[in-house]
Amino acid sequence: MQKIAVLRWGHRFRDERLTTHVALTARAFGVCEFILADVKDEKIKATTEKIVQRWGGQFDFNMGVSWKNAVKEWKAKNGIIVHLTMYGENIQTSDVLQRIKATRKDVLVIVGSQKVPSEFYSEKISDFNVAIGNQPHSECSSLAVFLDRFFEGKSLVKGFKGWKIKVVPKPHGKHVIKHR
Amino acid sequence: MQKIAVLRWGHRFRDERLTTHVALTARAFGVCEFILADVKDEKIKATTEKIVQRWGGQFDFNMGVSWKNAVKEWKAKNGIIVHLTMYGENIQTSDVLQRIKATRKDVLVIVGSQKVPSEFYSEKISDFNVAIGNQPHSECSSLAVFLDRFFEGKSLVKGFKGWKIKVVPKPHGKHVIKHR
Repeated sequence: MQKIAVLRWGHRFRDERLTTHVALTARAFGVCEFILADVKDEKIKATTEKIVQRWGGQFDFNMGVSWKNAVKEWKAKNGIIVHLTMYGENIQTSDVLQRIKATRKDVLVIVGSQKVPSEFYSEKISDFNVAIGNQPHSECSSLAVFLDRFFEGKSLVKGFKGWKIKVVPKPHGKHVIKHR
Repeated sequence: MQKIAVLRWGHRFRDERLTTHVALTARAFGVCEFILADVKDEKIKATTEKIVQRWGGQFDFNMGVSWKNAVKEWKAKNGIIVHLTMYGENIQTSDVLQRIKATRKDVLVIVGSQKVPSEFYSEKISDFNVAIGNQPHSECSSLAVFLDRFFEGKSLVKGFKGWKIKVVPKPHGKHVIKHR
């Protein structure tokens, strides 16, 4: 099965909560590796790791590596790069998702912010530029919908090994069980 | 067709970018009405309205109304309340989405933050508590996936009337057209 990792580009410290949400979205939707490129933000790392400790699963949080090196490394391991951008091929009207799957290669998903380097759009970097609709919205939303569709919803029922806390779905109220 | 509005609860000023992303997600995924409950944040309103002016469509941005009054009004107009929460019925494993559609009623989607009032989970407020997976992630992601599934992806190809700028999807590079 194709593995997916996520690279977050363009994080600034004021984006703390947004980038945390991107990382948690990656984890919840079945990604095992996260790269916060070019910067280090200990607070986000700590928040994410705390969630992983409580809720389980395997999720590698890396930071500080340059996006260029991360991309180079990924390609050296025969992986492909998918850049989520509103300028790319529309996931709803094109066959871009099928083409990504057909490669059967591991995918590094790049999520940026408003102004990403123009190189991201070129063939040299991104094998695919994918638009979750061609309107401006959010890297968080784009990532969630991309992963939901890529994994055909299956990641939403994924079990996370080593959980200390777990939700039992309920129409009303809250039900949480704790692992002793 | 069922109309969807979004109510954002629990916004704090430090959440400016996150709430903006929630509003833009609502718009991009086919929602026409947004309520920033209990607070006013002129900056978010201005950012959102600027996007609407450039990219088109109809999107009412309301703020300052209390969530209680908004819910009461919505119910008085025979609408239903859907609360997105990791504690609710899993959208992937349950038939909750079908049941929501089967009501054929207009939907007010409540997206909160970590600590929402416990009343939100009760039958008195929420007709449905829906979990986009039962793991912690993001209100932005939850809203995007809920809307993507509700509209079966169709909102991602929706045209926005009165646009001044528009993207032409492209595998590589950027292509934007401007309306004279």
